[in-house]
Amino acid sequence: MANLYNNLNLIDLNDYSVSWWEKLLDRAHKIMADPSAYAESCKGKIMGTLFYEPSTRTQMSFQTAMLRLGGTIIGFDNPATSSVAKGENIKDTTKIVSGYADIMVMRHPVAGSVKAAALTADCPVINAGDGGHLHPTQTLTDLLTLKEEKGSLEGLCIGLCGDLKNGRTVHSLIKAMSCFKGTSFVLISTPELALPAYIKDVLSAGGHPYKEVSSLDDAVGMLDVLYMTRIQRERFASPEEYEKQKGHYILDKKKMAKAKDSMIVLHPLPRVDEIAIEVDDDPRAMYFKQAKYGMYIRMALILTMLEENSMKVPLITGKVHEHQKCSNPLCITHKETYLPHYFRGDGTMLECEYCDERTLVE
Amino acid sequence: MANLYNNLNLIDLNDYSVSWWEKLLDRAHKIMADPSAYAESCKGKIMGTLFYEPSTRTQMSFQTAMLRLGGTIIGFDNPATSSVAKGENIKDTTKIVSGYADIMVMRHPVAGSVKAAALTADCPVINAGDGGHLHPTQTLTDLLTLKEEKGSLEGLCIGLCGDLKNGRTVHSLIKAMSCFKGTSFVLISTPELALPAYIKDVLSAGGHPYKEVSSLDDAVGMLDVLYMTRIQRERFASPEEYEKQKGHYILDKKKMAKAKDSMIVLHPLPRVDEIAIEVDDDPRAMYFKQAKYGMYIRMALILTMLEENSMKVPLITGKVHEHQKCSNPLCITHKETYLPHYFRGDGTMLECEYCDERTLVE
Amino acid sequence: MANLYNNLNLIDLNDYSVSWWEKLLDRAHKIMADPSAYAESCKGKIMGTLFYEPSTRTQMSFQTAMLRLGGTIIGFDNPATSSVAKGENIKDTTKIVSGYADIMVMRHPVAGSVKAAALTADCPVINAGDGGHLHPTQTLTDLLTLKEEKGSLEGLCIGLCGDLKNGRTVHSLIKAMSCFKGTSFVLISTPELALPAYIKDVLSAGGHPYKEVSSLDDAVGMLDVLYMTRIQRERFASPEEYEKQKGHYILDKKKMAKAKDSMIVLHPLPRVDEIAIEVDDDPRAMYFKQAKYGMYIRMALILTMLEENSMKVPLITGKVHEHQKCSNPLCITHKETYLPHYFRGDGTMLECEYCDERTLVE
Repeated sequence: MANLYNNLNLIDLNDYSVSWWEKLLDRAHKIMADPSAYAESCKGKIMGTLFYEPSTRTQMSFQTAMLRLGGTIIGFDNPATSSVAKGENIKDTTKIVSGYADIMVMRHPVAGSVKAAALTADCPVINAGDGGHLHPTQTLTDLLTLKEEKGSLEGLCIGLCGDLKNGRTVHSLIKAMSCFKGTSFVLISTPELALPAYIKDVLSAGGHPYKEVSSLDDAVGMLDVLYMTRIQRERFASPEEYEKQKGHYILDKKKMAKAKDSMIVLHPLPRVDEIAIEVDDDPRAMYFKQAKYGMYIRMALILTMLEENSMKVPLITGKVHEHQKCSNPLCITHKETYLPHYFRGDGTMLECEYCDERTLVE
Repeated sequence: MANLYNNLNLIDLNDYSVSWWEKLLDRAHKIMADPSAYAESCKGKIMGTLFYEPSTRTQMSFQTAMLRLGGTIIGFDNPATSSVAKGENIKDTTKIVSGYADIMVMRHPVAGSVKAAALTADCPVINAGDGGHLHPTQTLTDLLTLKEEKGSLEGLCIGLCGDLKNGRTVHSLIKAMSCFKGTSFVLISTPELALPAYIKDVLSAGGHPYKEVSSLDDAVGMLDVLYMTRIQRERFASPEEYEKQKGHYILDKKKMAKAKDSMIVLHPLPRVDEIAIEVDDDPRAMYFKQAKYGMYIRMALILTMLEENSMKVPLITGKVHEHQKCSNPLCITHKETYLPHYFRGDGTMLECEYCDERTLVE
Repeated sequence: MANLYNNLNLIDLNDYSVSWWEKLLDRAHKIMADPSAYAESCKGKIMGTLFYEPSTRTQMSFQTAMLRLGGTIIGFDNPATSSVAKGENIKDTTKIVSGYADIMVMRHPVAGSVKAAALTADCPVINAGDGGHLHPTQTLTDLLTLKEEKGSLEGLCIGLCGDLKNGRTVHSLIKAMSCFKGTSFVLISTPELALPAYIKDVLSAGGHPYKEVSSLDDAVGMLDVLYMTRIQRERFASPEEYEKQKGHYILDKKKMAKAKDSMIVLHPLPRVDEIAIEVDDDPRAMYFKQAKYGMYIRMALILTMLEENSMKVPLITGKVHEHQKCSNPLCITHKETYLPHYFRGDGTMLECEYCDERTLVE
C-alpha cells in the first residue's frame, strides 16, 4: 500500500475540486496566449504513452502537448505487435515504463485498468480512457472549449444530441457542467438512446432544468451550445429503424440556419455523418478547434501533474474486502486477479474503487 | 475556398519553377557542407508524418531530416492499427493533425489524395507519394545526386533501365531533366516495358535526343548516368518470358567494366536483384549515397516550406465543375465524395486538379 | 572488407576485455549519481532502432537511454508493416539507416544477423539480440545490478533457477561471472532443463565451484543472488509433467523466508508465474530496479560507442572460406547468401564468425 499516495494521478476528474479544474483552464489559457514561453518547460522529461487500444487522435494530442513543452516520448500504440502488452500483466508493464518515464499516459479497453496501473506506478499516471468508464481529458477539452468560446461556464443552455445512453463523453460532460451555476440541458435523442435515469438524477439533485426532446430541428434554436455525438447503427433493432431515425440527427446548413448566431457546435470526433461537411465552413462549427483546445489543456495538465507531484491525492479512499468480488464482469479485477479488492463504503453496499460499480454484499 | 492560398505546399514539382528547384539544391549543398549550422533551425517545430501506406524508407528519410534540423515528429505509419486513418475521411484526419503540427508530410495510396488534404489543412503539406501519381521528393533526391556527383545538371547522357512503362520515378525524372540543356536519354527496356508515348512527346517537344534500346550491355558504355529500376514479374505474360528477359537488366561487374570511369549508377531502392551485390563496392555505385542525399534535400525542403510559408502558391488554378466527374476511377474524388470537383481548362477537355487525368466533357 | 574496422560495434560482450566492461559499469554508476549532467551529452545525435522482431521492453530501454542523453530516435518495431524490413536484404536496409543515424541498435530473429549488418554499416552497431544467440546488453544489465546491489562482482554465490538449458541470458551471465574471482554457482533445474555440458566446462576450466540441484527450497538459503528465469511449457513431454515440476520453481514468500536477508532476486522479465506477485513488495526483489539499471548501462554504452568510435575493434578475426558453408541451418549466412563466408581457425574445425557454430571441414 506504500504507493497509494506516492504520485499525483488523474484517473477521474471527480477526484479533484472544481477550483482545480478552473486552475487548469486558466493555465491552458495562459499557454495559448504565449506558447513559446512554455517551449522548454518539460525539457529533459519523458512521457510514456501506453495505448493498449489504438486511439491515434488522443495519442497525437498528448504527444504534441508534450513535444510543445519541450519533452520527449516513449511508448507503444499497437498491442498486437507489442511484446510488453502481450501476455504480461499490467503491473509489470507499467512498473517498468514508469521507471523509465517521468509521466505516463495510459489507455486500455478495461474499466479500472488505469487506476490499477497507478497503484504501483513510479510516476504520475493520466487516464486517457479506460474502456467505457472514464476519459477525463476529453471532458477537460470540452470545458476549455466552452470557457474560451463562450467566455464563461455559467448560464449555458447545452443541447446534447445523438446517443445519450451509451456516450461516456456525454455523461461526463453533463456531470461536470452540473457543477456550474445556471446550466440547463436539452437532451435530444430517440427514446431508445435516452440519457440513463441515474444521470438525470444528478441533474435534478443539482436543480438544473432539463428537457428531453426527439427533434433536433425543434431544439436547435434555443441552444447556446450543441454537442453532437455519433449514433451507432448496432444500437437499433433493425437497419430500417436506424435509417428512419438517424436523419433527424444530421446537422446540416438548414438546421444551422435556425440556430442562434452565437451557438457553437462541438463534437468529440471522429464523426461519421451526423454533421454534414457543408457545416465545416460555418464559423460556429467548433469541433476542429476543439481538438486543438484538447492539445492545450493537455499541456496544462502535464505541466501541473509534474509540478504538483508532491501534492498528495489519495488514490484509494476505501479499504480491502478480501473475499468480496466486484459485480461488474468487465472490471479489471476479474482479469488481473492479483489486484487487492478495494471498495468504498461499508455495510451491505460496496463501491468498487476501480470501476465504480456498486456491489451488494452477500 | 478560403484555404486555397493559405499555405505553401509541395504537391507536384511542376507547380514550381526550375529556379526554385535550383534554390533547393543549393540550399541542400550548403547544409551538407555544414550540417551543424542547421541543428536548431526547426527547434520547437513539429512535423506530422501521415503514412496511409507503409514506406519506412521515405518516412525515415523525412524524420531524420526533421530531427537533424532540431524539430520533432508526430504521426502514424500503420493504417491497420491507426484509429484516425481507419474509417475517417481524409479531411477530418488531416485537419486535426495540421492543427497540431507545423508541417505535414503525407503518403497515401490514392492519386490526388495529398492535394485533397492540402485544400483544408492548416499548415504546409508535402506530398510523399500519392499512389502511382506523384512523388516529388524522390525526383528532388535524384536531381541533388546528379548535381552533386556530376557537378552540373546540363549535358548529361542518362540511361534509364528496366520498367520504363510503369515507373513513376522514371517519368518524373525524365520530365525534370528535360528542363536542363543538353540532356540526352537512352531508354533501355523490353518493348513491353517501353516508355509511354506521351512522355516521349515531352522529349521530342524539348528537342532532347533519345534512343530506345533493349540491351544494357550495348548501351552502358555511352552513359554518364545509369538509372536502374525494378522489373516486376507480374508485368510479364509468363514466368518464362520474365526469366528470359530480366537477365539483360542485371547490372553486374562485367557490365560495369564496359562503363565509363565517370559513369554513376542510381536506383530509387529497394532493389530486388537488378543490381548484383558485387557492384556495391564499385565507387561508381551511388544508390546508397543517393538515399543520404534524399535526407539532405528534405532538410532543405522542410526549411524552405516553413520559412517561405507566406509565399502564396495557388493550390488550385482551375474552377469547380459541379456535375462533372473525373474519368479516372482511381482518383481520390471517387472515394472522398465531399471534395469539390476542380478542373483545369474549359471547353470539351477538362483536366482533374487532383489526379491530372483528362476528361472529355459529355 | 574496407568496413571491417570502420566503426566500433557491440556484437558479443566477449569481443571486449573485462576491464572494458568495468569501465562501462563505472560510467553507468556516475550517470546514476548525476543524470542531469548527461542530459545533453548526445544532443544532435540520432539512434536508429531496427527491431526485426518486437521487443518493446528492450526497445523502450534503449530509447529512454538515448532520450535521457539528449539524443533522438528513428526506426521501426513492426516488421509486418515495415516496407524496409519486408523483402529487402539486411545489408540494404542497414546501409541506409546507418547513413541516416549516428548509432544503430538492432534486434533480429536470426543468429549472426547483427554482425552481418555491422560488416557494411556506416555507424556503430549494437546487438540488441540476434535470435537465441547473443544479447550482450542484458548481460551488462545483470552485471550492473549485481555490482550496484552487492557492492562487488567478486565472491558471489549465484543461484540460477528454471530453464538453464535454453536460456541465452543465463548462459551469457554464467560466462561473464566466470571472469570474476570467487564466484560460485548453484544450478537449480530439472534434469531435462539442466545447463549444457559445454557451459559447465567453462566453469570447471575457470575453477569455479558449482552444484546442480533440483529443489529451490533447499538451495535458496545459501545464495547471495537468485536469478530466476521462465520455464516454457513446450519444453516438457506432457502437460502433466510440466504442471508437476513447475511448482518447485515458483518463488513465493515462504521460500523468501528461507533466504538470507542480503540475498537479491533478479529476473530478466517478462515473468509468467515463476515469481509470485506477493514477492514484489519484498525489498530483496530487484527485478524492476534491474530494468532501470538496464537503462543506465545503455546510456553508458551509447555514450562510449559514440565517443570511442575511433578505437578500432576488428569485427572479423578469421578469413573467408569461399566454398565452406556454416553447419548451423539457422545461421544468417543461409538466408543472406551474399555474405562472405568468414570463419575463425583453420585446419579441420572452423568456427563461423556470424553464429559461432563449429563446422567440420569436409
